Amino acid sequence: MLSNPVNPAPRTLRIDLGPRSYPIRIGIGLLSDRASLMELLPDGPLLIVSNETVAPLYLPRLEAALSGRRVATCLLPDGEAHKNLATLERLYDSLGASRLNRDGAVLALGGGVVGDIAGFAAATWQRGVKVLQLPTTLLAQVDSSVGGKTAVNHPAGKNLIGAFHQPVGVIADLDTLKTLPERELRAGLAEVIKYGLIHDVDFLGWLEVQLPRLLSRDVDALAIAIERSCAIKAEIVSIDEQESGPRALLNFGHTFGHAIEAALGYGEWLHGEAVASGMLLATELSCKLGWLQAADVTRVRTLLERAGLPVTAPRIGADKALELMAMDKKVLAGKIRLVLLKRLGEAIVTADYDADALRAVLTESMS
Amino acid sequence: MLSNPVNPAPRTLRIDLGPRSYPIRIGIGLLSDRASLMELLPDGPLLIVSNETVAPLYLPRLEAALSGRRVATCLLPDGEAHKNLATLERLYDSLGASRLNRDGAVLALGGGVVGDIAGFAAATWQRGVKVLQLPTTLLAQVDSSVGGKTAVNHPAGKNLIGAFHQPVGVIADLDTLKTLPERELRAGLAEVIKYGLIHDVDFLGWLEVQLPRLLSRDVDALAIAIERSCAIKAEIVSIDEQESGPRALLNFGHTFGHAIEAALGYGEWLHGEAVASGMLLATELSCKLGWLQAADVTRVRTLLERAGLPVTAPRIGADKALELMAMDKKVLAGKIRLVLLKRLGEAIVTADYDADALRAVLTESMS
Repeated sequence: MLSNPVNPAPRTLRIDLGPRSYPIRIGIGLLSDRASLMELLPDGPLLIVSNETVAPLYLPRLEAALSGRRVATCLLPDGEAHKNLATLERLYDSLGASRLNRDGAVLALGGGVVGDIAGFAAATWQRGVKVLQLPTTLLAQVDSSVGGKTAVNHPAGKNLIGAFHQPVGVIADLDTLKTLPERELRAGLAEVIKYGLIHDVDFLGWLEVQLPRLLSRDVDALAIAIERSCAIKAEIVSIDEQESGPRALLNFGHTFGHAIEAALGYGEWLHGEAVASGMLLATELSCKLGWLQAADVTRVRTLLERAGLPVTAPRIGADKALELMAMDKKVLAGKIRLVLLKRLGEAIVTADYDADALRAVLTESMS
Repeated sequence: MLSNPVNPAPRTLRIDLGPRSYPIRIGIGLLSDRASLMELLPDGPLLIVSNETVAPLYLPRLEAALSGRRVATCLLPDGEAHKNLATLERLYDSLGASRLNRDGAVLALGGGVVGDIAGFAAATWQRGVKVLQLPTTLLAQVDSSVGGKTAVNHPAGKNLIGAFHQPVGVIADLDTLKTLPERELRAGLAEVIKYGLIHDVDFLGWLEVQLPRLLSRDVDALAIAIERSCAIKAEIVSIDEQESGPRALLNFGHTFGHAIEAALGYGEWLHGEAVASGMLLATELSCKLGWLQAADVTRVRTLLERAGLPVTAPRIGADKALELMAMDKKVLAGKIRLVLLKRLGEAIVTADYDADALRAVLTESMS
């Protein structure tokens, strides 16, 4: 099934969370599809949140699709460096100025930064208003727009201020990938590869074969990759909305990656790049613990390298890395819990690993 | 039952919210009761949040009760004027510095401002850490510490930024009321009287008789008033945690009151004073709509006046009041929903009232 091209008609997946269930729509031209937008939006005032890069490209068609509705717009500066409390405060001011009440909604038009910060503002404005996610990057379409995690960064660590707040829907318009910078496309592929590594070795194999089509932005291949990624995320989120257990598997590579992002300064590496480097570190540790073969590590490194992602960790030092990893939200009773691979396609969350092996991997790669 | 003195032994009520259920303990000396604190706290790092007024009085005994635990402290400036994003950011910095993870907890030692802001920080730090409420004012003990509403103010309106986040427990130490400024005691009585007005006319009658004992800080009378208030709040919150219905009844007087607070500047009137004035306005409107008798209005005004609470609304003007009331979180489809009295002891939430009657009441009282 995975090797067949998809029909260009939009696909709909569903996140099953009882009263908080919602659809994920994947297709072409969806930002101009008035009916699809209206079906998910309440009747009250709307605030579109976007950034200075995305708005010139996609805001006009979205505004046209919403014509006749009361719509305000808030444009944020672009980039992870701005995913902070100062930007959030500007967004709250826009919510106040647009008199957005509980019968209104926020529309997040952009990548992961816009989705995370707009989602958090919606989670906390009036103790919760509706948010519709309209992701415009591959990374946001396969990961950050789905599942209800919202956050801003704090100097002490990434995403330390946040909330679980499910959107009323996710609409992934494949058209937006046509203008996505090459580097962002590759960063998004890191999260796609993650799903193969943690949950679906067949998908991993498919990615190894189809990587050239994905890099050349073949819309059928991208649609398959996005749909499969969202399906895996939907399956995991539906059984563990608030990350008390298996949802932490989705953080594969992220504990290392967040430390890299914090050490280098947010925005220096893209999130997907830091995750790629982190996935390779986690893979190497899994090998050192005897769970993976050296050939498995090579297979992971090769795929990441072919996708144009970093396979050399930045030299931030093992001590600094450990210090930053200790701020991870998965830390329990002082122990850094990690997502590691028992085999390719099967991840576990564990604090039961040899701490010396972790330090050895960090020292080898980061010193 | 209401007229009998309580046993000085601590009383425990329970908020029933399934996995988010928790106890409310009311008694003497509870801030020094190590066992009672430890029973509710997790094993990880603790951060006590208090303010510059409360800390000198009660922080030493709390720290002594927690001796041996890893405890940090964050003192906030005192007063409603500081319940804002700037103060919240200081609190996040303390959470980062104390490396507080999901196995830690925040302790909110203070009145409503400390409880609201510490509760919101706990709701959003790492997408939610535990919070234990240790209210030290009558208002916080009977209202704001119970039920999981947390918030900070925004220039556009009171409590516009917030979250629902239930504490792991509420410990109301009656000793703290001994040092409470007279004006704060009276402000707390406004919320106590509210419970009688919206839900329990017998309690209203008891308050009319026992008011002198309450004002003279008779500990038995205060314990009864707090327990009965918390019991009513627990009953309502247990059936409607996120205010989709009956919980809004607890906002009796608050839509008017929030407008008063915003118009005068936060902190100019105490919250309880603004609520008292708002309750009288809501009572007058209920009378104008034909639901109450003039004698009922007199009865409410007399009780508030005897409690030393404002019975004359500030002259902010009807237009300004309506504009600020339109930012209320209960507004739906552009209509200001109000909590009004069908009779003393029975409130309803409704948008189905004569808007001219509302304007007339505001014009008579506020112009």
